[in-house]
Amino acid sequence: MKEWPRILIEAVYPKLDDGRYPIKREVGDTLEVWADIIRDGHDVLAAAIKYRPRGEAEWREAPMRHFDNDRWTGAFPLEANTRYTYTIEAWTDAFASWQRDLDKRVTAGQDVASELEEGAALVRRAAARAGGADRADLEAAAARLAGGEAAEARARAAGDAGLARVMARWAERADLSRYDRELEVVVDRPAARFAAWYEMFPRSQGRVPGRSGTFEDCIARLDDIQAMGFDVVYLPPIHPIGRTHRKGRNNALVAAPDDPGSPWAIGNEQGGHKAVEPSLGTLADFGRFVEAARARGMEVALDYAIQCSPDHPYVREHPEWFYQRPDGSIKYAENPPKKYEDIYPLNFATADWEALWRELLSIVEFWIAQGVRTFRVDNPHTKPLPFWRWLIEEIEAAHPDVIFLAEAFTRPKMMRALAKLGFTQSYTYFTWRTTKPELTDYLTELTQTDVREYMRGHLFTNTPDILMPFLQEGGRPAFKIRVALAATLSSLYGIYSGFELCEGVARPGVEEYIDNEKYEIKVRDWDAPGNIKAYIGRLNAIRRAHRALQQYENLAFYPADDPAVLFYGKMTKEGDDAVLVAVSLEPGAARESALHLPLDALGIGPDQPYRAWDLLGDRALPWQGPVPRVRLTPEEPAIIFTLATRG
Amino acid sequence: MKEWPRILIEAVYPKLDDGRYPIKREVGDTLEVWADIIRDGHDVLAAAIKYRPRGEAEWREAPMRHFDNDRWTGAFPLEANTRYTYTIEAWTDAFASWQRDLDKRVTAGQDVASELEEGAALVRRAAARAGGADRADLEAAAARLAGGEAAEARARAAGDAGLARVMARWAERADLSRYDRELEVVVDRPAARFAAWYEMFPRSQGRVPGRSGTFEDCIARLDDIQAMGFDVVYLPPIHPIGRTHRKGRNNALVAAPDDPGSPWAIGNEQGGHKAVEPSLGTLADFGRFVEAARARGMEVALDYAIQCSPDHPYVREHPEWFYQRPDGSIKYAENPPKKYEDIYPLNFATADWEALWRELLSIVEFWIAQGVRTFRVDNPHTKPLPFWRWLIEEIEAAHPDVIFLAEAFTRPKMMRALAKLGFTQSYTYFTWRTTKPELTDYLTELTQTDVREYMRGHLFTNTPDILMPFLQEGGRPAFKIRVALAATLSSLYGIYSGFELCEGVARPGVEEYIDNEKYEIKVRDWDAPGNIKAYIGRLNAIRRAHRALQQYENLAFYPADDPAVLFYGKMTKEGDDAVLVAVSLEPGAARESALHLPLDALGIGPDQPYRAWDLLGDRALPWQGPVPRVRLTPEEPAIIFTLATRG
Repeated sequence: MKEWPRILIEAVYPKLDDGRYPIKREVGDTLEVWADIIRDGHDVLAAAIKYRPRGEAEWREAPMRHFDNDRWTGAFPLEANTRYTYTIEAWTDAFASWQRDLDKRVTAGQDVASELEEGAALVRRAAARAGGADRADLEAAAARLAGGEAAEARARAAGDAGLARVMARWAERADLSRYDRELEVVVDRPAARFAAWYEMFPRSQGRVPGRSGTFEDCIARLDDIQAMGFDVVYLPPIHPIGRTHRKGRNNALVAAPDDPGSPWAIGNEQGGHKAVEPSLGTLADFGRFVEAARARGMEVALDYAIQCSPDHPYVREHPEWFYQRPDGSIKYAENPPKKYEDIYPLNFATADWEALWRELLSIVEFWIAQGVRTFRVDNPHTKPLPFWRWLIEEIEAAHPDVIFLAEAFTRPKMMRALAKLGFTQSYTYFTWRTTKPELTDYLTELTQTDVREYMRGHLFTNTPDILMPFLQEGGRPAFKIRVALAATLSSLYGIYSGFELCEGVARPGVEEYIDNEKYEIKVRDWDAPGNIKAYIGRLNAIRRAHRALQQYENLAFYPADDPAVLFYGKMTKEGDDAVLVAVSLEPGAARESALHLPLDALGIGPDQPYRAWDLLGDRALPWQGPVPRVRLTPEEPAIIFTLATRG
Repeated sequence: MKEWPRILIEAVYPKLDDGRYPIKREVGDTLEVWADIIRDGHDVLAAAIKYRPRGEAEWREAPMRHFDNDRWTGAFPLEANTRYTYTIEAWTDAFASWQRDLDKRVTAGQDVASELEEGAALVRRAAARAGGADRADLEAAAARLAGGEAAEARARAAGDAGLARVMARWAERADLSRYDRELEVVVDRPAARFAAWYEMFPRSQGRVPGRSGTFEDCIARLDDIQAMGFDVVYLPPIHPIGRTHRKGRNNALVAAPDDPGSPWAIGNEQGGHKAVEPSLGTLADFGRFVEAARARGMEVALDYAIQCSPDHPYVREHPEWFYQRPDGSIKYAENPPKKYEDIYPLNFATADWEALWRELLSIVEFWIAQGVRTFRVDNPHTKPLPFWRWLIEEIEAAHPDVIFLAEAFTRPKMMRALAKLGFTQSYTYFTWRTTKPELTDYLTELTQTDVREYMRGHLFTNTPDILMPFLQEGGRPAFKIRVALAATLSSLYGIYSGFELCEGVARPGVEEYIDNEKYEIKVRDWDAPGNIKAYIGRLNAIRRAHRALQQYENLAFYPADDPAVLFYGKMTKEGDDAVLVAVSLEPGAARESALHLPLDALGIGPDQPYRAWDLLGDRALPWQGPVPRVRLTPEEPAIIFTLATRG
């Protein structure tokens, strides 16, 4: 009958799908928790968050306070890179209720002799539970409440703040009720939320046309990448590349003898997912590259692509892990009528699935052992969701600092599901969003709805697969626009190398690069005229200098009169940093727009003089009043600025 | 490892707090169910609602179809007055996937010999599971797919619709995934949603001043109440009334010898909650009254007020059920510094709570045995929430036709919690909502948000405790306004007797009647001049004639230019009935307003002639065009009308 608690705790926030999945935060955050707490009658309630990091058996406790309209709130610190569990308890504070009522009775001049007896009994029961000095204090208080003094003096003693504190420690928690779910928050390291990524093909980092670059060459590139201010260097697969049905230049069905093939056709006689393509160097060379990046404050991210070329060792050793035709031959990948004969997909539901899954897990563990802590996962939406949940939870338990970025360009609910199930970061539709309403709607969805509790949207300006018409047609100004947007709209963004050189030539009629690096080795002049490396470096320096840009969920859009000018800003919760950004979305012409400054949010009065500082130009702006006009040109399509009251 | 299903089923709608509580519907409804269903890859999915009424062990099944963007929907009929359980299953339709891919391959001119072999194997496996004629059909189909005909002919055979149907019956449901909650819907009888209530004190139904009316007198009133069109006659407590600290007229602390006392001070030496106050008659007389109401198509609702006068038999028999002072005496009700010395509250958490709860349950069962099926519950928010959940579930399991109306005028979240936990209907803040924005916002919240899934808002125009200034000051037009609003804004509404006589005199300075019937016997002239009985009768007749007004969740507000004119309408889902209502909120003067007719929603073109019919006046309206003007007067403050295209 009394299976349900007397106090109802509901509408708990944050929580994800009623606790089926953890929400995500980063080390150093404070988790604010909210709940509706409801009990019959008029007694005084008390409530607390119960929480514990993974591995601790005892709950810690953080107090909650009534906010308004039966809504309560509290907070606890997220100090470690681990998973925390939290829930809520509420109880009737019998002593506080008694004390409040006693006050009212005394004020109304009522006889309170019987009430003082009741209070003394409450205090006596607490004394029986108390330890040390508290017990003696409580016994003394009980004696006084029940004692011979005048009722007024005893009632005054009942209201003593010290007594209330000791009672809070020892009094029984009447009607103690626990929320019926234990919720979880995965606390990642800060790089899960704040990082600028640089994607490059190691084989294209050499200096000799037609010859593969090596990890040695990659090390030589690091100073340049560091100078641009990137945090993560991401490499497409570095494993031996299949020979059977190898693709040639521009995705040709037949490769020329010297074509290197796509790094995503993994595996040949020299090894599979745990091997290094010999032309890049050795595993030890790779380790030196990882170390060289770390020495410069950067880290290396690897690609994790679960698919095999027909020459992969797994095909020989475990044909049962693949799909087979009635005649026993192994099926290549297909999306009928399209055929991908250079790729064999794995059958995750094979009878031997457990061995397969463990082997796939061991690949990640192998590269973790080589010092890799970040993985960009190729096409996760074509592998079973429960596989990812299992794999990421296994890795997280042993290596909570590992980051998984989901490269899923697919239907929105699948992208969200992957994030819910565990992926640390997610590719987004950013590349396809170019107009003001598109960018406003999409970034609002990513950062201002519940999606932000579990999905960290990563804004890549381009990828080896995606070169949008905006970049194909807009030239250098378009590249500046897109990288300024990416670097300031999200705390996570990236470019694929070549972007800094404004490479924008596509295969006719598609949104993809001509002479795609996926199928050939490139040698570039990294200091070619017209490059925007200094511009990118400036953007990354501003991101590092401003905490507001390092946060994800703090994006706000503001009105700009021109439909081709996007105006937005980010502010820290503490209000100690704020950055405002106006970007022209028109690469071909100058735009002028009034900007409606969010002076109120910045604590600046409508008529108060302020000082506007241009962070890209490093100069004061001659603005006055709440609606200054800005002129954005193809050469300087973005303005990033701070506002402060004049001292 | 594979503890999670391959197919993700989420965002299920409707559901309440993730299935902690049932949603509510009524017999004859169809429950539409929605869900996001997501699987990796490109295979064809299938899904079904699994559902069963209480007491059935086997699931029934209703198919779901893909709607859009990974959202699926289906529906099942709610045929019985009981509780249904429902959940969702989804699986990979291997045969449909195979067939779709085969089509594409054939269209592309590919060799499909191997694929036909695979299809034959699928059909053969289904045949092994099939019974009767289906097995033979499937074996024949498998033989043909694997047979000697040309590939094109075999591929055509694979696409046979009959084969697809038989395969759907027998094929294995690959990757079968079940939603991880079983949800519930309480299906009440239609009166839970649609009823007009009339509240009256039986002791005031007599004809002799100073002498208590009887159930006989109540029977004599029924024709009058029936003529007004009410469905439910609700009686305040009919039990013996306490003598100790009995309240006198106008809530006087000391009663005169002939004062009858408040019916809510329940119990004296003649009995408690299972007894009838002798001056009203006997239990048999009450039974005759219930029967007489039923014979007129009405039902009787009783008050269920869990509190005892000091003279209640429970006080003698079970002092342990009450709160006791340190000296052993029993505590009366208090809300310090206020004292309610004529009432003893029960201690629901007493050591003997199980016996107490069972006794309280037995009170409801006692009156059910007397033919009562509807209970208005007094102040449920001062009793524990888990008590209500238990009591209502116990009653519902044995008597699913019983209706509980929660009389909780308290904080909004408590009111919602009571509804979630099981109350069939809920009193609302309607009496306090008098302006256009107040009514629009509040009725939108009640009928157009998730609240409608579990809370059926009952709009009482007045109660023995609530006489609002609008009625005190507005006279007869105000009464017409409020009853017209109540009767058309919600499918559930009620009046407290005297309302039809436009009784509006309050004790000075409070929102309560002078000479309150709670403390004295009244004898009224039910046909006093100025009464609005015919008006109420007309309203109830319109409600009975129009299905649109019998539904709850179909309210929509439309623009009226005048801020004192509220314009709204209700339409059936099927579109076969629609009623529009414009009400002046100004009792003191005539108002004129343009009404922006929702012609589009009614299927009437913007320039199409229509026929507007005034349901209160029973006459055609001479309107033309989409924005007619209406004049509402103190005498006719509301217009209720239908619109139809001219034939």
